[in-house]
Amino acid sequence: MSAGEAAKDDKAPRTARGERTRRALLSAAAAEFGEKGFHDGSISGITRRAGCALGSFYTYFDSKDDIFRALVNDMSGQVRDYVSPRIAQARDGIDAERIGLLSFLEFARAHKEIYRIIDEAEFVDQAAYRAHYENTASRMAARLANAAARGDVRADVEEVHAWAIMGMNVFLGLRYGVWDDSRPADEVAAIANALVERGIGRSD
Amino acid sequence: MSAGEAAKDDKAPRTARGERTRRALLSAAAAEFGEKGFHDGSISGITRRAGCALGSFYTYFDSKDDIFRALVNDMSGQVRDYVSPRIAQARDGIDAERIGLLSFLEFARAHKEIYRIIDEAEFVDQAAYRAHYENTASRMAARLANAAARGDVRADVEEVHAWAIMGMNVFLGLRYGVWDDSRPADEVAAIANALVERGIGRSD
Repeated sequence: MSAGEAAKDDKAPRTARGERTRRALLSAAAAEFGEKGFHDGSISGITRRAGCALGSFYTYFDSKDDIFRALVNDMSGQVRDYVSPRIAQARDGIDAERIGLLSFLEFARAHKEIYRIIDEAEFVDQAAYRAHYENTASRMAARLANAAARGDVRADVEEVHAWAIMGMNVFLGLRYGVWDDSRPADEVAAIANALVERGIGRSD
Repeated sequence: MSAGEAAKDDKAPRTARGERTRRALLSAAAAEFGEKGFHDGSISGITRRAGCALGSFYTYFDSKDDIFRALVNDMSGQVRDYVSPRIAQARDGIDAERIGLLSFLEFARAHKEIYRIIDEAEFVDQAAYRAHYENTASRMAARLANAAARGDVRADVEEVHAWAIMGMNVFLGLRYGVWDDSRPADEVAAIANALVERGIGRSD
């Protein structure tokens, strides 16, 4: 464990009430940074939205940078926690990717601030930005490897396929989730999934 | 023509020497914003890098926002001008997408600042950010429609496929162009293109 992680552990909530306050601060930070961006967003704006005192903020976070980093990690985890149990219901490895995109589109439509926050991490906290995409791609590569082992997809699937499919999903989420949600999400997911099915599905 | 464009036209260089100065300022702005980001980058940093006087800056640009917007449009055009003539050499519609990705990977490796600049436009100039991706996707959708008319790809290709393939390319460029260029670009392009060929190529 690094010194940074040790310091953060000192600020981890010890009670259910503390956990609720920390969660309220993270939700307020998502609204504040999603609306104003990192530079114009402020700790006082966050505590005002959360309806809590400035002292409570410093009980759980060290600084504006600290809560931003925690928010990026939290949103990255929220996407995973929304998508993963839905993928677990899939019929097979190809259907898993359809459900992965469909549930990501649903998540992006309900949390339109997610792109602004994760994308701004490229400038505010490069390590958190890379971690989000590297973790997402690693999960997808592991899913594809399992699907290949079960014979659902081609045996030659590898990291390039995971980054390609993740990139598809990110831009379909931006275009059909955040910018314009007039097209049914399941239609978009079905079209993209047909490409993936033909692209990496077993041909024999 | 909007009032903004009319104002910009007043600042368009009238001589070859003026065009060289404007070009030097844009290159300096790419280095300045690529290294420091928009907020910490400055007009004086740009003129210092370009080796020209502050007065010259204001001959061609109104403000830091103005040169940033011009830079995003210029980089978007540079990608197009690098990729398009190479795509024109393609054997068919599928090969065009392989060359499109390969030349984009080459461009990203040679201009690693492109992601920082175009991605920061999401926060500094949302219209320029959307225009870059909407124009890129429109060009790709037009290419796919032509390929479908020639029988190179499936007849049902549409906008979702264009956004899917563009997203693939953007993330493969980030992963294998900017973050880590140790893998041969043509190998990455061939793997992704095989996915696209099976995904949207004609099966009959």
